Amino acid sequence: MSGTLYGIGLGPGDPELLTLKAHRILQGVPVVAYPAPDGAPSLARAIAAPHLPGGQIEVPIGLCMAVERAPGQGGYDAAAPGIARHLEAGRDVAVLCEGDPFFYGSFLHLFARLGERFRTVVVPGVSSVMAAAAAASRPLAVRGDRFAVLPATLPNQALRCAIESIESAAILKLGRHFARVKALLTEMNLSEGAIYAERVTQAGERVMPLRETGEEAPYFSMILLYKGAEPSILGAGARR
Amino acid sequence: MSGTLYGIGLGPGDPELLTLKAHRILQGVPVVAYPAPDGAPSLARAIAAPHLPGGQIEVPIGLCMAVERAPGQGGYDAAAPGIARHLEAGRDVAVLCEGDPFFYGSFLHLFARLGERFRTVVVPGVSSVMAAAAAASRPLAVRGDRFAVLPATLPNQALRCAIESIESAAILKLGRHFARVKALLTEMNLSEGAIYAERVTQAGERVMPLRETGEEAPYFSMILLYKGAEPSILGAGARR
Repeated sequence: MSGTLYGIGLGPGDPELLTLKAHRILQGVPVVAYPAPDGAPSLARAIAAPHLPGGQIEVPIGLCMAVERAPGQGGYDAAAPGIARHLEAGRDVAVLCEGDPFFYGSFLHLFARLGERFRTVVVPGVSSVMAAAAAASRPLAVRGDRFAVLPATLPNQALRCAIESIESAAILKLGRHFARVKALLTEMNLSEGAIYAERVTQAGERVMPLRETGEEAPYFSMILLYKGAEPSILGAGARR
Repeated sequence: MSGTLYGIGLGPGDPELLTLKAHRILQGVPVVAYPAPDGAPSLARAIAAPHLPGGQIEVPIGLCMAVERAPGQGGYDAAAPGIARHLEAGRDVAVLCEGDPFFYGSFLHLFARLGERFRTVVVPGVSSVMAAAAAASRPLAVRGDRFAVLPATLPNQALRCAIESIESAAILKLGRHFARVKALLTEMNLSEGAIYAERVTQAGERVMPLRETGEEAPYFSMILLYKGAEPSILGAGARR
């Protein structure tokens, strides 16, 4: 009997935003694997740390951050056979994943490599998008609002086209694209009322109106914008 | 000192998909409020039930399902003053909310009425959208995919326009709009490969290819569709 491959959604960063299900699985699983950027601590490992009983086998997946934009495929190619051997030997493997595994999650790289060969169970997690809205005290979507999640890595035309077709959006992974995206939103007359959120629920969390930001943003940051008609969204929360 | 108004995200239905933070707050809070459709059991109350220690004051918020499309405003108008009195008396109130409170959540109705007067803390929850992807073993979005959440209540033109501008989407709240939305997706050549998911993680969960569905769907149902270029999304998962 092969083991089960678990994709564990860890949520946005606060270890208390793990689900009870993720907590239970982490308490019992013999092997955990997680992305470990070369030379930096693994955020996924840090979120899961309070939930690991100790004694489990750990499989760090080395990533070369320099090529993270074509994201660390080499690291996953290298790690997949070792994880497969644990599964073949009947050991369950929990892959730790920030946020939700199937929503831009790093787990997708292992799912693509091992998902057909092994029984796979995904435990959904709280997305940083919902956590950012909670931290900003600003609702994301109401009633008939159309809501989009857009990676900032996209060219302006792809962002503009999507933004024009919806009422509310989160633009993720700002990093080196921040100044360009901010300029686009200003040009589209959408920067007033927009919220900037960085490292939500993690150490160093920052949440503020977009107009008060500087020119730099880390990868783990996003902009929330709203152009719909619901006053409750731009009401209490936005005025804080 | 006034109490704190908590918006508690309960997740999609499985009580084990609550966060540890939601669990902790429910264990300690003196008052819980929740939507209670007239004559039907409250889903929110049922999800939270295993986490309530007993002895708390309960405030069911009566809703008239007949007008839920202009959603139960009367029930919230009637309930808000009673909740405000608990808060004024220094008692914290946890409002139970399926999914995530700020993502089409019923909590928004109380947030709009009480969010400016009282300290408000929102505990983000797992969205049914992420839970549906996990149940279907089908990723939602990868890398540069644009992802949209679209209420099925919208007219075809509003749906079509958004779908044309993104790579991946979840269409929610199908109910009486199901046949129309399904016909629209067929017309757009997007129904092949689309997934239908109903009551995910709840009793009666159903997940299947859209092409195998009949003509009826409940309110708690959605379609996941993918038109992007990532083979890993339509790979292992979609073939199950």
